[in-house]
Amino acid sequence: MRTGIATVCLSGTLREKMQACAVAGFDGIEIFEQDLVTSPLSPEDVRKLAADLGLTLDLYQPFRDFDSVPADLLAANLRRAEAKFRLMARLGMDTMLLCSNVGTATIDDDELRAAQLSRLADLAGEHGVRVAYEALAWGKYVNDYEHAHRLVGMVDHPHLGTCLDSFHILSRDWDTAPIEAFNPDKIFFVQVADAPKLSMDVLSWSRHYRVFPGEGQFDLPKFMGHVVRAGYTGPVSLEVFNDVFRQSDVERTAVDAMRSLIWLEEQSSTWLDAHPAARPEAGGAAARRRYPMELATLPRVAEPAGFNFAEVSAGDTAGLETLLGQLGFAFNGRHRTKNVQLWTMGQARLIINEEPASGGTPAAISPAISALGFDVGSPVIAAARARQLKAPAVPRKSQANEEVFQGFAAPDSTEIFLCQGSPDGTAAWVGEFGEPGAPRESGGPPPASAAGAVIDHVNLAQPWQHFDEAVLFYTSALALEPQPYAEVASPTGLVRSQVMRTRDRGVRLVLNLAPLLQQEAPATSGAGRPRTYQEHVAFAVDDLVATARAARDRGLDFLQIPANYYEDLDARFALDPDFLATLRELNLLYDRDADGEFLHFYTATVGSVFFEMVERRGAYDGYGAPNAPVRHAVQYDHLHQLTRTS
Amino acid sequence: MRTGIATVCLSGTLREKMQACAVAGFDGIEIFEQDLVTSPLSPEDVRKLAADLGLTLDLYQPFRDFDSVPADLLAANLRRAEAKFRLMARLGMDTMLLCSNVGTATIDDDELRAAQLSRLADLAGEHGVRVAYEALAWGKYVNDYEHAHRLVGMVDHPHLGTCLDSFHILSRDWDTAPIEAFNPDKIFFVQVADAPKLSMDVLSWSRHYRVFPGEGQFDLPKFMGHVVRAGYTGPVSLEVFNDVFRQSDVERTAVDAMRSLIWLEEQSSTWLDAHPAARPEAGGAAARRRYPMELATLPRVAEPAGFNFAEVSAGDTAGLETLLGQLGFAFNGRHRTKNVQLWTMGQARLIINEEPASGGTPAAISPAISALGFDVGSPVIAAARARQLKAPAVPRKSQANEEVFQGFAAPDSTEIFLCQGSPDGTAAWVGEFGEPGAPRESGGPPPASAAGAVIDHVNLAQPWQHFDEAVLFYTSALALEPQPYAEVASPTGLVRSQVMRTRDRGVRLVLNLAPLLQQEAPATSGAGRPRTYQEHVAFAVDDLVATARAARDRGLDFLQIPANYYEDLDARFALDPDFLATLRELNLLYDRDADGEFLHFYTATVGSVFFEMVERRGAYDGYGAPNAPVRHAVQYDHLHQLTRTS
Repeated sequence: MRTGIATVCLSGTLREKMQACAVAGFDGIEIFEQDLVTSPLSPEDVRKLAADLGLTLDLYQPFRDFDSVPADLLAANLRRAEAKFRLMARLGMDTMLLCSNVGTATIDDDELRAAQLSRLADLAGEHGVRVAYEALAWGKYVNDYEHAHRLVGMVDHPHLGTCLDSFHILSRDWDTAPIEAFNPDKIFFVQVADAPKLSMDVLSWSRHYRVFPGEGQFDLPKFMGHVVRAGYTGPVSLEVFNDVFRQSDVERTAVDAMRSLIWLEEQSSTWLDAHPAARPEAGGAAARRRYPMELATLPRVAEPAGFNFAEVSAGDTAGLETLLGQLGFAFNGRHRTKNVQLWTMGQARLIINEEPASGGTPAAISPAISALGFDVGSPVIAAARARQLKAPAVPRKSQANEEVFQGFAAPDSTEIFLCQGSPDGTAAWVGEFGEPGAPRESGGPPPASAAGAVIDHVNLAQPWQHFDEAVLFYTSALALEPQPYAEVASPTGLVRSQVMRTRDRGVRLVLNLAPLLQQEAPATSGAGRPRTYQEHVAFAVDDLVATARAARDRGLDFLQIPANYYEDLDARFALDPDFLATLRELNLLYDRDADGEFLHFYTATVGSVFFEMVERRGAYDGYGAPNAPVRHAVQYDHLHQLTRTS
Repeated sequence: MRTGIATVCLSGTLREKMQACAVAGFDGIEIFEQDLVTSPLSPEDVRKLAADLGLTLDLYQPFRDFDSVPADLLAANLRRAEAKFRLMARLGMDTMLLCSNVGTATIDDDELRAAQLSRLADLAGEHGVRVAYEALAWGKYVNDYEHAHRLVGMVDHPHLGTCLDSFHILSRDWDTAPIEAFNPDKIFFVQVADAPKLSMDVLSWSRHYRVFPGEGQFDLPKFMGHVVRAGYTGPVSLEVFNDVFRQSDVERTAVDAMRSLIWLEEQSSTWLDAHPAARPEAGGAAARRRYPMELATLPRVAEPAGFNFAEVSAGDTAGLETLLGQLGFAFNGRHRTKNVQLWTMGQARLIINEEPASGGTPAAISPAISALGFDVGSPVIAAARARQLKAPAVPRKSQANEEVFQGFAAPDSTEIFLCQGSPDGTAAWVGEFGEPGAPRESGGPPPASAAGAVIDHVNLAQPWQHFDEAVLFYTSALALEPQPYAEVASPTGLVRSQVMRTRDRGVRLVLNLAPLLQQEAPATSGAGRPRTYQEHVAFAVDDLVATARAARDRGLDFLQIPANYYEDLDARFALDPDFLATLRELNLLYDRDADGEFLHFYTATVGSVFFEMVERRGAYDGYGAPNAPVRHAVQYDHLHQLTRTS
């Protein structure tokens, strides 16, 4: 598949954009006219720069408001087009995007439109240019891709074809199956964009909220599957208008964009295999071989089975050790060669990493979540997949005969390690730790309820400008599935909470987008990963009440839940008075839905980290979202008290 | 008018919100349930705090999903309501908001609904509570305020009335005139919110984009006029769900909110005077006297006639002086007692202020726009109005027999001065400056074309979290009118450009909302006002070509316009070749529309300031928006070159 991207997707100057596209590995680009008009580079400079960078210049765009006009305007439009054709000759470009008319169309007549498009195709032919006609979703008379394609058929001119843009098609919910029957010689260009499903006017939606494939909710593999079956072999090019991408680091966004096409290529291939062609003469893999577009695939991996470990980096570890001991974690000793502690409860493993990050001094590191390990079937294959998806590798020192972890940096800089899962839930590397024993800070052995403990979910704060990138990263590299997001009120604004999980719920990762003003003054942790908001690891146990009682007896600093909460809880759920008294006594939170019940509590925060203990009853599948505002408010109040008294 | 605000409008804890409301001068508040549930304050604490702060507790809200349900759910809902009624007794509150059912309604039958509402009213009566029933715009069966009012009439119970919320009514474009005929005893509460007109699902629009009155596009004075005519005398209370306000400084947002009600009160009074009552027995001011709600008004002021001056603060003034001299400004000397220079061209006055801001060292002050003077009919009256609108006054030192300016800080910290305009466009305070003379840096006298020069517009960058506040500030305190905003592409993201102007175009102020990432690392200017983006003052002259030639001859550093721009311009407008050559030669930009033509050029940037010279031909009323991306791109490129070479 030939990959492309429109320069309008990216920030910076035309030169910066082109360099970033080349570095990210794109085959070609679309030149967005405004990027050229505002550039000091001459057309000849751009042509040479593209050649030097190994980029083809695939599409000049957009040319607007041409068809369905009276004769005098047609003449002016042809003059305007000819100026652009001459410019394209200087750029060495041969394909121009023509959008269906929005602003100046006054005559709704397909015969007239075809005649006018024919005039343009003639003129284009004289200049060696091909015109790719696209139906904008909000085009005045032409807003349906099949209509645009019919017009192309009426004109039947070698210099006029159609451009298929997934946004304009899928935003209108048009059926994409008819694409399979299109003559591939008449499909001059294919643009892809994803988008979240929003209920708003389609123009605003298109101009501000498009995202790269895999970051939204459109069925792009199906769209691409039909395009491939039609026999199209040209560039598949991203055209994504997004307010955030337009201001983000250009090289990073280009890599995110490239990752989305690599993922889309694989998913399209998967879709084709799973959906035999509708036409009787075609079918499955055999049919695909009939079509010349080659779809590269990635090493396949199953979804991870669970969390292998969570890691918190810290200079001063005393607060963490106290908390873990009080929660009932067992201290499993220090690593043989690294300055690292292992704490466990059941199958839940928490590492405290005291190794200084490059350039950091250990003592300056306030506790923060720094890494997550995932159990995968084959770490080597999963790592190869992640590398091909351009996930940045992170080095981790290891000695001979120690397990080597394959590690990558997530978009928020969390280190993601791919580990060998074992059927019994143990981890081989645990043997690298010495001095196992009873919890250091506790008064006794862990309670029986802890035996089945696992990491239930991890909640990571995301920088707002990398949120979509994170969704695609976890989707493509780790096979997590994004769920519909929730919005939670906090005293400092709404927090967007995006669950990414595996189908069997073995891994639940919650990405929190903190309010913007919270992100302006990140609490620098001293480590590599700046923390903008509190984050946590949640552990599931079989008996939360017993866990909480034991923790209380060991002196745990619970997050204190206001009395008003329990009154409201009773008003909502009419709870058994004894049960309500227990919840109140132990600062437990409660939720219930049609599937089951959820009990949980939170610890106080150390650095930017706190812990949650949960018990899921029945098939409860949520995270206690109705209780999140209480947690945020109490944490905020606590933080402010600290600020006021310090 | 009794003023109120819902706690959900603001950030922080319940205590912080209540304190801010009291400081801002609200009479009462609505308690948003979640703010109480998440608070460590007991209901009794809240009651006492409100009494101590002099706030009434006007509405407990919201109670949801009550009506149109089967019998078993009704019983549970009544039990839930009773718990809230008992809670309200502890709070000392007597009015609860009931929203029409969204989530659990299954029976669409007005008789049943009325019977269920009657049961609730009976129960409320037993607890001394009144229930205010509101039709949510997205209510399942009840989403029209007249429908809710009809149900209240059917029930006819002293403990059931209606709540009118401007958002739920105006978002659906319901006619508000029928409110006049409502029985005022059945209107238990009135909530007001404004909103920009957006095409999106009404729930998302409501939950994220509401703004305070005067910051959106709803006709709230008309809504309030009908409410007043109905005879309603209760609180007029803000209920504004806004993603930005929820995270902004609570005290500042509360003042912004209070300003919006003060403005609304005046505008409602104006609307009533201008719109005689539709009912024959009523009419105009006489009719209003029949209704008991008193509407306070503000000192009336006409819109400002023009800019009196613009002021740039600077430590090192050399760059500015050079630019102004090259543009053809005359140096009019220094102020008698202050470290301030005056430069003029025609009636355009530019002040360079070298006085250090409090705490700042002059040398550290990079040139930045610091103040604007506006010509008003009576500075004393205009200042009284601004004070009543809670505009923060700024001190400005002045000696005896010097003109005393009334000054206020705009939301972006620009100092706004209200000056005595004179019919001939002169300013009396100019006499306080000495050593008038020819331009210091130029080679000769100003060109004749400069004689008619005026300040055409000023373009100020706005912090994103104070943008709506700024719109209301200029609307209410200076009588500028917001125009539909434009979005302009720049290499660092989309820039939102909001024109505020007077009807006669004597004052044009452009508020620019820079991309967020540009705002994260504000270039601290050393002065009081942090600058996040480049800003400019534009001067209109009669003959821009002559002005540009003279400036070029004096060696002005023009913003260099790319050759590609002129080719595109020619493709679009088919310009006369000689004229195009002149534009190209002088780095002039050009725009044309049905009303006229616009020529302009920009200087290089000094500190965060640059200048624009414009010529308006015919009735051209814009700002050359199609050229703005060129300006942004060239400035960005220039800034990056500076960064790379420094």
